[in-house]
Amino acid sequence: MTKVTGYAAKAPHERLEKFEYALPEIGPEHVDVRVAYCGLCHSDLSMINNDWGFTQYPLVPGHEIVGEVIRTGSLVKGVKPGDKVGLSWFSESCMHCQHCLEGNQQLCATAEQVVVGRHGGFADIVRGHWSWIIPLPEKMDMAKAGPLLCAGLTVFNPLIIEGVKPTDRVGVIGIGGLGHLALQFLKHWGCEVVAFSSNPSKYEEILQMGASRVVDSRNPEELKTVQGQLDFILSTVNVPLDWQVFLGCLAPKGKLHTVGIIPEPIPVPVFDMIAGQKSVAGSPGGGPAMMRKMLDFCVRHNIYPVVEEFPMVQVNEAIRHLEQGKARYRVVLKNN
Amino acid sequence: MTKVTGYAAKAPHERLEKFEYALPEIGPEHVDVRVAYCGLCHSDLSMINNDWGFTQYPLVPGHEIVGEVIRTGSLVKGVKPGDKVGLSWFSESCMHCQHCLEGNQQLCATAEQVVVGRHGGFADIVRGHWSWIIPLPEKMDMAKAGPLLCAGLTVFNPLIIEGVKPTDRVGVIGIGGLGHLALQFLKHWGCEVVAFSSNPSKYEEILQMGASRVVDSRNPEELKTVQGQLDFILSTVNVPLDWQVFLGCLAPKGKLHTVGIIPEPIPVPVFDMIAGQKSVAGSPGGGPAMMRKMLDFCVRHNIYPVVEEFPMVQVNEAIRHLEQGKARYRVVLKNN
Repeated sequence: MTKVTGYAAKAPHERLEKFEYALPEIGPEHVDVRVAYCGLCHSDLSMINNDWGFTQYPLVPGHEIVGEVIRTGSLVKGVKPGDKVGLSWFSESCMHCQHCLEGNQQLCATAEQVVVGRHGGFADIVRGHWSWIIPLPEKMDMAKAGPLLCAGLTVFNPLIIEGVKPTDRVGVIGIGGLGHLALQFLKHWGCEVVAFSSNPSKYEEILQMGASRVVDSRNPEELKTVQGQLDFILSTVNVPLDWQVFLGCLAPKGKLHTVGIIPEPIPVPVFDMIAGQKSVAGSPGGGPAMMRKMLDFCVRHNIYPVVEEFPMVQVNEAIRHLEQGKARYRVVLKNN
Repeated sequence: MTKVTGYAAKAPHERLEKFEYALPEIGPEHVDVRVAYCGLCHSDLSMINNDWGFTQYPLVPGHEIVGEVIRTGSLVKGVKPGDKVGLSWFSESCMHCQHCLEGNQQLCATAEQVVVGRHGGFADIVRGHWSWIIPLPEKMDMAKAGPLLCAGLTVFNPLIIEGVKPTDRVGVIGIGGLGHLALQFLKHWGCEVVAFSSNPSKYEEILQMGASRVVDSRNPEELKTVQGQLDFILSTVNVPLDWQVFLGCLAPKGKLHTVGIIPEPIPVPVFDMIAGQKSVAGSPGGGPAMMRKMLDFCVRHNIYPVVEEFPMVQVNEAIRHLEQGKARYRVVLKNN
């Protein structure tokens, strides 16, 4: 038995409270990680507030976890005690279904999610299957790595699976935790990048991060200048948009890809989609192989989130900061 | 000046009437074709009835044209008088924009469409730019080739651009003029194929055409058996469906591709699309290079539409036959 101390939500929209629970004896394929840092993601808010209807309380949130391996089962592969590692949205998958065998473990029908029916990284210890415990590259900055594991992977993965090319003109909708990492990836992808943002106070930073241009997503006149121009649009927002307008920003063969979970369906106009050979898609992030590929790319190009660090004990203040839309650009909680 | 005799619609929902018009002297890059056969496509009905709002009357419909070259301009390449050729939805494109240079002439912003603002193949002669006058393979059956040029290309193109693999499980929605050709392509693609049809009188033929299985698209219990199973769904219908159900038939990474022009937008549920890494797309058919590729494939595998032949003078009877849903599976008009 291992005692874990964390911060748990007991009900929607309530403050997290200090919470202890016990992990059973470690299994042969599992790994215990001492949490050093954990990012705070919008999905944690959605889970805390049961926005998606499958939260089980009490819940210790947190799924952008960076730490050190402290214990391994007898059959663990790839990591050992003392290793610096990361753990993200998934903590285990079956390893033998078609998707797992193909390296798309995130699509495994029985994949275990870190904060669904179990506890995550707003704690001192978290456990996962070795396959999802990702060794961090030696040169990686631990204090900033957490948000790469979820926010970073979520926006990196579409660039790979959709085959975004350096010669493409790309739009990014929403420059927050996910979008500001997408801008950095795309800068080093070689793309021409249009950032769609409705927050003028961010525009200077957005250009520094690698956008070729910022378009005010609430200004119809500015949006018109991008009509028919973009080969790929990555949407990171979780609120409904005027999809007609953004689909209109696509060039022929253009693709709109959303990683933001929007409650309402996207109405896709068929005539325009057919005539322009366009597509609308989504994705949940990649598997462990994709994660390693992304981390290597980040180290090579010095790509990190802009983080605001809070001590773990101030988790409720950090949550309020995010809820108020003040995060620039990603909050990370630090264990002492 | 060349006198052309054809059949024209003068107003929506009216019978076609015999109609004569004059073509100016042929330009250096143009080709005149004596029409031998012309397929009758649902899009001709849509144009006759101005369903899409851009019909210009009088209109000679017809865009699945097979015939013989009778006249060429001085700079024509690739075809010469006496050649057996086909002409489809497009009759000309600019040749110098990005899409034309990439072989996607169908995406050219200034592409000329055979039956938009000019006259098509329900006539004795039709004219087009040499680049869209496609030489037919020597062994091709002229009497059945017409529907391949539009119906065939429209369902062949998605298999190429979406990268459908022989190991994929594929669904085809709607087994009419387009769908019955899709079944034949997919049979020779090596795929496992589920045909969705609401017409039990077609089921035996559908299985003979290459479907592994027929699912009654109006039977919720049968549809349930396909949930989460298909890697690719090609929809050929032009009426709204219960898209939620068909998107649910997609396996993770699955793609729904529509070539049927539906007036209402397709509402795409975002959570399911993201979690399952799915996409929704459309396409208008391919360019001349894709057309040649398809025609070669058809000759190699003896793929042809099942046609019902009407003499051109009975064009109005043929149209009524199609409107009444009686076409099995494609009507072709024959000039005497």
